[in-house]
Amino acid sequence: MRSKLFIAGILSTFAVPVALADEGMWTFDNFPSAAVEEKYGVVIDQEWLDHVRANAGRMANGCSSSLVSDDGLVFTNHHCVIGCVQNLSTPENDYVTNGFFTRARAEERQCPAYQIEYLETIGDVTEQVLAATLSLPVGQFTEARDAIIATLESESCGPREETHRCQVVTLYQGGQYKLYVYQKYSDVRLVFSPEIQASFFGGDPDNFNFPRYAFDGAFLRLYENGAPVSTPNHFRWSTDAPEAGDPVFVAGNPGSTSRLYTESQVESLRDFIYSDLMLQYSELRGQLVEFSKIDAEHARIATRDLFGIENTLKRMRGQFKALLNEDLFEQKRVADAELKSLVEANAELRARIGDPWAEIEAAQAARAGIYMTNYLVEGRGGFGSDLYGHAVDLVRASQERAKPNVERLPEYSQARLPLLERRLLAEEPIEPELEALKLEFWLTKLREYLAADAPETAIFIGRESPQTLAQTLSQSRLADPGFRRMLWEGGAAAIEESDDPMIVYVRTRDEVARTIREQYEERVEGPTDRAMERIASARFAIYGTDVYPDATFTLRLSYGAIDGWTANQQSVPPFTYFEGLYQRATDYEPFNLVSSWAEARNVLNPRTIYNISSSNDIVGGNSGSPLLDEDGAVIGAVFDGNILSLGGTFSFDTEVNRAVTVSTVAITEGLEKVYGMDALVAELTAP
Amino acid sequence: MRSKLFIAGILSTFAVPVALADEGMWTFDNFPSAAVEEKYGVVIDQEWLDHVRANAGRMANGCSSSLVSDDGLVFTNHHCVIGCVQNLSTPENDYVTNGFFTRARAEERQCPAYQIEYLETIGDVTEQVLAATLSLPVGQFTEARDAIIATLESESCGPREETHRCQVVTLYQGGQYKLYVYQKYSDVRLVFSPEIQASFFGGDPDNFNFPRYAFDGAFLRLYENGAPVSTPNHFRWSTDAPEAGDPVFVAGNPGSTSRLYTESQVESLRDFIYSDLMLQYSELRGQLVEFSKIDAEHARIATRDLFGIENTLKRMRGQFKALLNEDLFEQKRVADAELKSLVEANAELRARIGDPWAEIEAAQAARAGIYMTNYLVEGRGGFGSDLYGHAVDLVRASQERAKPNVERLPEYSQARLPLLERRLLAEEPIEPELEALKLEFWLTKLREYLAADAPETAIFIGRESPQTLAQTLSQSRLADPGFRRMLWEGGAAAIEESDDPMIVYVRTRDEVARTIREQYEERVEGPTDRAMERIASARFAIYGTDVYPDATFTLRLSYGAIDGWTANQQSVPPFTYFEGLYQRATDYEPFNLVSSWAEARNVLNPRTIYNISSSNDIVGGNSGSPLLDEDGAVIGAVFDGNILSLGGTFSFDTEVNRAVTVSTVAITEGLEKVYGMDALVAELTAP
Repeated sequence: MRSKLFIAGILSTFAVPVALADEGMWTFDNFPSAAVEEKYGVVIDQEWLDHVRANAGRMANGCSSSLVSDDGLVFTNHHCVIGCVQNLSTPENDYVTNGFFTRARAEERQCPAYQIEYLETIGDVTEQVLAATLSLPVGQFTEARDAIIATLESESCGPREETHRCQVVTLYQGGQYKLYVYQKYSDVRLVFSPEIQASFFGGDPDNFNFPRYAFDGAFLRLYENGAPVSTPNHFRWSTDAPEAGDPVFVAGNPGSTSRLYTESQVESLRDFIYSDLMLQYSELRGQLVEFSKIDAEHARIATRDLFGIENTLKRMRGQFKALLNEDLFEQKRVADAELKSLVEANAELRARIGDPWAEIEAAQAARAGIYMTNYLVEGRGGFGSDLYGHAVDLVRASQERAKPNVERLPEYSQARLPLLERRLLAEEPIEPELEALKLEFWLTKLREYLAADAPETAIFIGRESPQTLAQTLSQSRLADPGFRRMLWEGGAAAIEESDDPMIVYVRTRDEVARTIREQYEERVEGPTDRAMERIASARFAIYGTDVYPDATFTLRLSYGAIDGWTANQQSVPPFTYFEGLYQRATDYEPFNLVSSWAEARNVLNPRTIYNISSSNDIVGGNSGSPLLDEDGAVIGAVFDGNILSLGGTFSFDTEVNRAVTVSTVAITEGLEKVYGMDALVAELTAP
Repeated sequence: MRSKLFIAGILSTFAVPVALADEGMWTFDNFPSAAVEEKYGVVIDQEWLDHVRANAGRMANGCSSSLVSDDGLVFTNHHCVIGCVQNLSTPENDYVTNGFFTRARAEERQCPAYQIEYLETIGDVTEQVLAATLSLPVGQFTEARDAIIATLESESCGPREETHRCQVVTLYQGGQYKLYVYQKYSDVRLVFSPEIQASFFGGDPDNFNFPRYAFDGAFLRLYENGAPVSTPNHFRWSTDAPEAGDPVFVAGNPGSTSRLYTESQVESLRDFIYSDLMLQYSELRGQLVEFSKIDAEHARIATRDLFGIENTLKRMRGQFKALLNEDLFEQKRVADAELKSLVEANAELRARIGDPWAEIEAAQAARAGIYMTNYLVEGRGGFGSDLYGHAVDLVRASQERAKPNVERLPEYSQARLPLLERRLLAEEPIEPELEALKLEFWLTKLREYLAADAPETAIFIGRESPQTLAQTLSQSRLADPGFRRMLWEGGAAAIEESDDPMIVYVRTRDEVARTIREQYEERVEGPTDRAMERIASARFAIYGTDVYPDATFTLRLSYGAIDGWTANQQSVPPFTYFEGLYQRATDYEPFNLVSSWAEARNVLNPRTIYNISSSNDIVGGNSGSPLLDEDGAVIGAVFDGNILSLGGTFSFDTEVNRAVTVSTVAITEGLEKVYGMDALVAELTAP
């Protein structure tokens, strides 16, 4: 197993340098330029890094993007804007199915609650955070850490809250705390979105697979004061066909990895987290599939949820396969044991570090008992119901906003309120029938997984039935943004007086949910985080800092080359071409051609490079990231990984883990010949 | 972990005798009477065993039952007759919801395709089976073994095919081959079936849980030549309240366990079987839940499937939890290593046995590659579609019946045709809409799990869509039993000429399915079975034969005592009472009271023992088994196990594994006071 080698590489100074393995999602202040130069002969200097950093945008909805014109034009994936497109749609105008095309700036429409953020500076606040918690008992750890973080964020951004977002980022699972300051743009408008059958050709069967034929690109535009933002230093849009072997870079925001986890943490994921969550998602998927069969309108309103669930499920399946691989546990055992013994051998370290592995193991044992309760009540209460989510935010914010910043639940701290408010008040349609489905599902699973006789079941369902209760709650007036604004502005008094069924439901149960969360933080998260801090510190002391942290949905750079892979004696080449789309097409979903593409067949160059496979280390959150050539020009937008890359959550295997990108040459040709978006093409290719 | 001790007990002569642990599903020709006498002071002699054997009926649908009156009256679970009840129902008369009650014999209605079988003799055919395969290469093992079994079964039952069923049973995973001869009754009529809300009070949330309040009992009657069968030597029906600590026995047909599996076999279940199958079941569950919401009629036709899937899923979840327990693997490693080293130490054994563990491991590696293909194409083709199942039987039988008995696929061998024919031609309603749902689900999962580009996807879906294809196939005329009879009697010519869409579909793909099955048998099942034969032989040689075999859906006897259990510091008492039902009831499904029970509240004795927990070793297939007191009187029908008993598939833990039974005292009182079934009560309690 090659992956063993590379895991060892991360953790041990005796192994080959990581950099030779194309592994790592590197922070911009610690990029291994020397290793890249050695392997690829490409010089990545500070100027290159600064240019890329300034143009790689983080989308607040969990995606990445790139700035590609003088006038604030943003390139990302179609699946990163599908939420906006669905929100702008109506039963009469289904832009998800039919696409959204603008021929003039006036036609560009604001995406509710969208925000794109550009990293300006990275500061180190590790000392301050550690100092604030050092002498406290473990039970107070989470609260104290969250308080200092709230203070640091608000002090940094307070005066520039309108234009900036400040975020303390926990790197290396607690080894470093960094203050990331972003310039933010909250007026983001939709410019171009293709038909979903073009962007997601092959649907769920082809998702996380390659060869692929997906036009998974979309364009947004940043606005400020009603006018497009001027962005003269944007990425260059490449119209040159890339070649196999070309060195390429991905600048984006990988969401989350668990490569630094200890053995007992990974065991928890395997033994009592993944399998149950996958079962829940599968069942909900089945319900949504059947719901979608009722008629076209049901299918339309369920599209986004179904897409999201199928995507999550497929990712989890790939990750779970990795968790069932004994090798992973062997790697963890070896790595944990090596570090432990090196700590043991060093009296100073031993005194400072103690035995965090044992602490984590104890915390995991506690986790086994309360994980599902916390997940169903607090972590995923409402199971995706917007009404429930809004009610929780309104009820809690009304209490939290009355407290000093440092005493609040972190998601209601000063620096985080602006985005929360935008999301809460956004003009997004809420579908009562879909809400009822999700709420009933949630309550049914709560009863099933916590047991019919559990106290939480009595509190959240009582002697009602999930079905009738969900029906009642789905009629909440919270579907109306004006009603939400009234409660948001009315504060605690308005919440207290409200007789809206969902507000009453959440208000009368919130104490219970908070208690469960507190217990989970005290018994599981606090002890684990604190112990991880010390493990990270031991790692730095022993192995140095020439390593990369786990993904945290913050800006990273990964490098690699355009490359296919070989698995099961099958060799997969790195490119697909337009002609492959037409060969793969059938008359039926999800392999049918949308009419625009069927009609354009004869005018398209069949040999245009469509999708690309490359060896960059990526993970969910990287969707929409620019794939850059060595000069820093955009040659595509990463939209997927191959199925083998899903194990990348736990370890990277350079032999088979691949990123999948839609090329700018395909996007350019499609815009021109399929969609006739000549002005957009001119804007992209302006000299 | 106590379970470690008991697993060791099975395998090692050095450990405590198994019998002291209430463990084991013992065959009637090898019951540990001495151990039972030592532990419980109860003498189980040949007369006792013969009496029990003669009255414990195996139901061909996968359940167990007991004879309880002079006139062929059969007591079993309601959930064992739900298929029949649903088949007799119509949109106007929904007997599943409303119950089925007869006041006179003329009202008793035949259950389509039901058959109940009573074990008459057990013969040993181990020598013959082993001799037929001994000198053959492993690739021919399965075929040769199936051929000798077909011959033995048909020679034994040929002349008495009308009244008997002969079955060669593989015990100890190949250690013994026994010829079981049954008297069979194929005219089985429904006498009494309660409302599902009484039998399955608490629904899925309470399933596999205890305390329980389920009236999960039903009555059938055996008929012959249009008259009830005379059964004067039936079980005595007890109306005495049992007491905690009473020794009790379960005589029934546990379906399947895997306690003798080697480590690599159990690993396969964990690594690439359970988790994927559970995901598929969960999704189908979600679809059926949503399908059931459309209206009452959709709910009615989906009841049986939904019940079955939820039950299977819950069982699999419990088993998967056991598979995630590292202790299980440690036990396997220890047991495998001990036996291996004892074989190694004995030159004669070593020469005869070789290294079957390595052979099994190799077979499991092959299995990883082709398991899902075989499962979706052959093992579970159609995913429960009756139309598909009937088509496969018709197409294959038309070919197989033309061959000599020994050359047929085993399910079409002479001795097995009568039951196959009854099932195929039974007057059961087939619902096209539900068929379409299952067929579409099947095809979608086939494409998803085998990949869009797999050759099987091309063959079974081609360039169609699962939805349109399922729609077409669901319109097959095979829903009409008369049409099926015509094809059955018309043989190969009729099949060849048919233009029925399902017949054409299966006919043109059957060669592919057969090939996949052959490969699976040659590479996985044959090598595994043959190696397991030698492991069993080594086990007998080293540890003796004073052990019990894995469950095989054949008659077994397990012993134990009425007993609760303690887990997570909570002690669960062994009885529930009628009063508990009323305390637990709410106004909503699945905890609502059906009106008959609501109305009877004041006439029922609140302290009547309702459900019972006992320490007997049971597993799925035992449903409907009589729970017997030491005198061999029926004191209840086993209908469930507690959630902890689900790990019993792999090992038995006498501390916490419990069987759950509905008592005869509750059934008697319910029949009398809730249902007014006085004649039935009189029949049961006749002196």
